[in-house]
Amino acid sequence: MNLLVELVLLLPLLFIFYLESFVKLFIPKKGKSVTGEIVLITGAGHGIGRLTAYEFAKLKSKLVLWDINKVKTEIGDISILVNNTGIVYTSDLFSTQDPQIEKTFAVNTLAHFWITKAFLPSMMKNNHGHIVTVASAAGLIGVPFLLAYCSSKFAAVGFHRALTEELNAFKKNGIKTTCLCPNFINTGFIKNPTSNLEPTLEPEKVVEKLMNGILTEKRMVLVPSSLNFLLILEKFLPQRFREILKRGANIKFDAVIGYKVKEQ
Amino acid sequence: MNLLVELVLLLPLLFIFYLESFVKLFIPKKGKSVTGEIVLITGAGHGIGRLTAYEFAKLKSKLVLWDINKVKTEIGDISILVNNTGIVYTSDLFSTQDPQIEKTFAVNTLAHFWITKAFLPSMMKNNHGHIVTVASAAGLIGVPFLLAYCSSKFAAVGFHRALTEELNAFKKNGIKTTCLCPNFINTGFIKNPTSNLEPTLEPEKVVEKLMNGILTEKRMVLVPSSLNFLLILEKFLPQRFREILKRGANIKFDAVIGYKVKEQ
Repeated sequence: MNLLVELVLLLPLLFIFYLESFVKLFIPKKGKSVTGEIVLITGAGHGIGRLTAYEFAKLKSKLVLWDINKVKTEIGDISILVNNTGIVYTSDLFSTQDPQIEKTFAVNTLAHFWITKAFLPSMMKNNHGHIVTVASAAGLIGVPFLLAYCSSKFAAVGFHRALTEELNAFKKNGIKTTCLCPNFINTGFIKNPTSNLEPTLEPEKVVEKLMNGILTEKRMVLVPSSLNFLLILEKFLPQRFREILKRGANIKFDAVIGYKVKEQ
Repeated sequence: MNLLVELVLLLPLLFIFYLESFVKLFIPKKGKSVTGEIVLITGAGHGIGRLTAYEFAKLKSKLVLWDINKVKTEIGDISILVNNTGIVYTSDLFSTQDPQIEKTFAVNTLAHFWITKAFLPSMMKNNHGHIVTVASAAGLIGVPFLLAYCSSKFAAVGFHRALTEELNAFKKNGIKTTCLCPNFINTGFIKNPTSNLEPTLEPEKVVEKLMNGILTEKRMVLVPSSLNFLLILEKFLPQRFREILKRGANIKFDAVIGYKVKEQ
């Protein structure tokens, strides 16, 4: 009963928050500056990671790039310095001529947890930082034939959510979190994906949305944005109707080509 | 455009499904019979697993119980026969006098995936079976201070969702899936949980709901059912308002006591 009274008393606040959100729809949010900030990117050798590295390079961040695969030299003037003890050297962009990779690392969902855990204490101390978790639409919706992938991406989304709540509980509002959930992307992870619903995403488009999400401090970046609508539909449409729609969407791909993960 | 026309043509079907769901609200669903069915329960030595074993025992299922911890003798007349090669012997309940555990197993989210994967082919062949995934409300909502637990429970929910979709894609409608997501339960996993929102759940209540969910073939069993409402609120309330509500809910616990997991 007491709880109900408290809830009613909160209603004006709810109205103000909704009004604020509505007004904000018409004011484009200015992105924060990341010049001189240290940016650590795992999986920087391919796809989303590589393109994101380029974007942060343009914004003059200090880049630390990790990858399990040999990062191709096209990355050019972005310096990559990771020694084999796991200690990271940051280096100013465009100042080192010869990029060299001394050691590549196994990066996967679990590695993301460990890395975050390793860097979190110093972020907490300074109440400054931004943790970006790259998940997938398959971390929000169950996809057939992708059981292990779905599980690990759901885990990544769960990690992002719990981390966000934990930072909030510690009142560390200087540390931001962003979770990227794109639909099928044409990066070679999935072979020949096709669907009647939307064309397969090009990595450039995903990275554009991701960069915008990071700089404007969005918590969840769904690409394409129509995924937001799909998730709400999922909640409210009867199960059998969803099944018919899914058959209509006709999601198909040839095979899953996993990233090579270093043996432990 | 074509897609839009197709969607409009599907609308009468949607109306029928909603009508059907509404009518079904007033017709109590009769539970299926599990007499003589083989029921494998992991984590059968404590809490939810143990109580679920008792319930299936009453319904005269053939029980196979696994646990990492030594199952206490109170379980009494339920026979436990697991040999150390991982091959499982089923045994009729109440027919074996001396229950004996030859080997205990590490059971966790990953083990659940492997076990399911091992049993799925024969289930698929017979188009018959029921896979129950025990997750948690922490597999749907981010909980501070429970990062690893949240991630693994999100993974369990993701596994359940992908598995459900996969069985649907294969048209194996004889194999059912159920996912249990209870709120804090008083089973010793979390020490002294308190919250202003709801009293901590007693395992007996959770198992009652779970058994009902399994027998009536529900896909998702949330305990308490008010979690359904909370999840919808989570989607539509502004973030800052949710934070105020969460502070009001005042979820607290002393420490997390993990299950002992066997070293690999």
